[in-house]
Amino acid sequence: MATQNPKGTRDFLPKDERVQQYIFSKWRETCLAFGYEPYEGPTFEHLELYTDKSGEEIVDQLYAFQDKSGRNIALRPEMTPTLARMVAAQGHSLPKPVKWFSMPRLFRYERAQKGRLREFFQLNMDILGAQSLDAETDLLLAICALMRNFGFKPTDFRIGLSNRRLLNALLEQLGVENRNAVYAALDRRAKIGEEAFGELLAEAGMSPEARKTLNDAMGCASLGELEPFCVSDEARAALDELRFVLGRMAALGHGESVGLDLNIVRGLAYYTGLVFEVFDAAKSMRAVAGGGRYDDLCAKLGGEKVTGVGFGMGDVVLKDLLEEHGLLPDVSRDRLDYWLVSFDGDVETLFRTAEALRAKGRRVAHPLELRKFAKQMQEADRSGAAKVLMLGSDKAPEGSVEVKDLRDGSQGVVPLDQL
Amino acid sequence: MATQNPKGTRDFLPKDERVQQYIFSKWRETCLAFGYEPYEGPTFEHLELYTDKSGEEIVDQLYAFQDKSGRNIALRPEMTPTLARMVAAQGHSLPKPVKWFSMPRLFRYERAQKGRLREFFQLNMDILGAQSLDAETDLLLAICALMRNFGFKPTDFRIGLSNRRLLNALLEQLGVENRNAVYAALDRRAKIGEEAFGELLAEAGMSPEARKTLNDAMGCASLGELEPFCVSDEARAALDELRFVLGRMAALGHGESVGLDLNIVRGLAYYTGLVFEVFDAAKSMRAVAGGGRYDDLCAKLGGEKVTGVGFGMGDVVLKDLLEEHGLLPDVSRDRLDYWLVSFDGDVETLFRTAEALRAKGRRVAHPLELRKFAKQMQEADRSGAAKVLMLGSDKAPEGSVEVKDLRDGSQGVVPLDQL
Repeated sequence: MATQNPKGTRDFLPKDERVQQYIFSKWRETCLAFGYEPYEGPTFEHLELYTDKSGEEIVDQLYAFQDKSGRNIALRPEMTPTLARMVAAQGHSLPKPVKWFSMPRLFRYERAQKGRLREFFQLNMDILGAQSLDAETDLLLAICALMRNFGFKPTDFRIGLSNRRLLNALLEQLGVENRNAVYAALDRRAKIGEEAFGELLAEAGMSPEARKTLNDAMGCASLGELEPFCVSDEARAALDELRFVLGRMAALGHGESVGLDLNIVRGLAYYTGLVFEVFDAAKSMRAVAGGGRYDDLCAKLGGEKVTGVGFGMGDVVLKDLLEEHGLLPDVSRDRLDYWLVSFDGDVETLFRTAEALRAKGRRVAHPLELRKFAKQMQEADRSGAAKVLMLGSDKAPEGSVEVKDLRDGSQGVVPLDQL
Repeated sequence: MATQNPKGTRDFLPKDERVQQYIFSKWRETCLAFGYEPYEGPTFEHLELYTDKSGEEIVDQLYAFQDKSGRNIALRPEMTPTLARMVAAQGHSLPKPVKWFSMPRLFRYERAQKGRLREFFQLNMDILGAQSLDAETDLLLAICALMRNFGFKPTDFRIGLSNRRLLNALLEQLGVENRNAVYAALDRRAKIGEEAFGELLAEAGMSPEARKTLNDAMGCASLGELEPFCVSDEARAALDELRFVLGRMAALGHGESVGLDLNIVRGLAYYTGLVFEVFDAAKSMRAVAGGGRYDDLCAKLGGEKVTGVGFGMGDVVLKDLLEEHGLLPDVSRDRLDYWLVSFDGDVETLFRTAEALRAKGRRVAHPLELRKFAKQMQEADRSGAAKVLMLGSDKAPEGSVEVKDLRDGSQGVVPLDQL
């Protein structure tokens, strides 16, 4: 019990943490390649930042508490409210648009299960202050680049695109008053099954005909099929948004990875436009990423109106997916350039040689208490080093050192200044 | 109010976050150069992990709360208990010694002031399972390397070394029963002044003569001066530990940076041997790092006995010190290799060119909605890019592009495949 981590959290031993660092470095590298700038915020925020703005489900899952001064505090369950708060606080002094990224640790008190933990990391990429739908294009291209940089093929994943605005317009056409109830039902549809889904729509006041029309529209696999359902100007304008972004992505060579998926709703309350989710091709796991446009969030936090669009990509499903595709690199080897061992028990010379090699930019370590030579070589094997330097060997003349390559087992004598 | 971060926390705008990333990358690079392996743990732990093992002050400063299942949880105020827990959980299956590092975010509810925040980052380097005092040597060398890698000179900082075991032996010689009260008084000495300090010692049951002897011993600036105070075998053995490590560090060329400082006590309850703190040379700030040996912590957590020694280096004082010494690099420039602008308003070509350059490993960005050319060039200046590529210019023949170097203002025409 004393050695147990809290439920839904993870201990990262070095073999696990090296995998995390691999994921983080790919995330960071891709963001920087697209010109996104890094930011961070506090791990906890004032509770009010979430209670009005996030979705109901996420608010139910908050780790919330009072601090010693009685402030209502919550561990951040998502990054977007923090981002919107920071941008709103800058006001006009921050030239727009901005492209920002962060890799926050997030917290949700929910049932721990495959792909879902109570504490996880999430890459967030966002563009604030851009009206153009090419903000969406930039983010979708970044998702394609992320997946490619991890080694996935364009057919290994699928980005499904929908539009909150279109859904809203369709529900308006159908005369639905209680749209939030319908969104909640749609978001839970896959989990609860068709019967319960139909009942929820009926409870939301939808007639059997309205339900059938909605169902038919949601089942459309192409923009062409969907077009007849879009009667109002608003619905047609929303359809055009989908057409624009899908067309742009196809023109840029990503038609294979991006498509229409009207079943995507997104649980969060603040989305106002296009929404999207990324799944493995077989859709056998939870979404690996998801996001959309939130044009009203900054203004709701008391700032000026600043448009926003962004997505989050969690580390948990991503790691499962990388494992399934055999795409996790072997992170156990070549962590060190040299491991030093000693024939003559002179520890100070180990320290001195290590310092000299580090000054030349090498990664070097050595035992801190000397055992028998055979034991030292066992330690060397475990060290993950590329080569062992054997100090104090009488085979090596002054100024030289005996070297064993741990990758191929070859041995030789090398002048120290050539290391 | 809605746009305010919680008291004692920080928002990191990109200009701030780039500085953080600079600090983190130097931390990581140095740890890897010494062969320390990365690990991480949960942001919160079961409250019991801290209440018995950490110092009183740190327990008073805990962010503690109950989760939705009534578990007592605390945001981690320090990393060592998590590390000891993880190593204890591995038991014999983990070959020792291990050299591990982490860069956790930590939380302490205390009065926010210069050098002290409620949320901060802290590099932790630890060696577990090594008996030899050369574990201390390895860590002290790493501190010297960290400071050097940040650009500090050996005389810019000072590592003060003391020994809990020696203090304990001196108090035993003086017949002091309530040693924890004396440690607490010593730890607060600088803050509370000599008069209050003397009163606390008297309250702990120390006679005027015992207080004078302790004071004289604590005032010793060298091992030679200290020697006559060390009467018991235990005291002499503890003195030898200090002599060994100070001697080793001097022999390895770090005599300028490391010295005896018996006023260092360290607030944490679990230290058992050498303790040390790192200050700026003028001692004008709080400690930039501190640590020591904790040989009993793993066993206290229900594991086998595994020796430990390690230190923490916080980001807050370090950043202040880097600023004071003018050692923070200019992180605003060369974030991008290329910023693209367009003469002819063809956004798709911007996207296409950016993708092609990124495939070659370049960092590239461009506007998402095209303004007049002069406005585009203003954006380019703000972008932090090294060069601007001007697409659609009639000065550049097919397959070439007009390039402006933003660092020196020079302009020219370059074939696209040579970028």
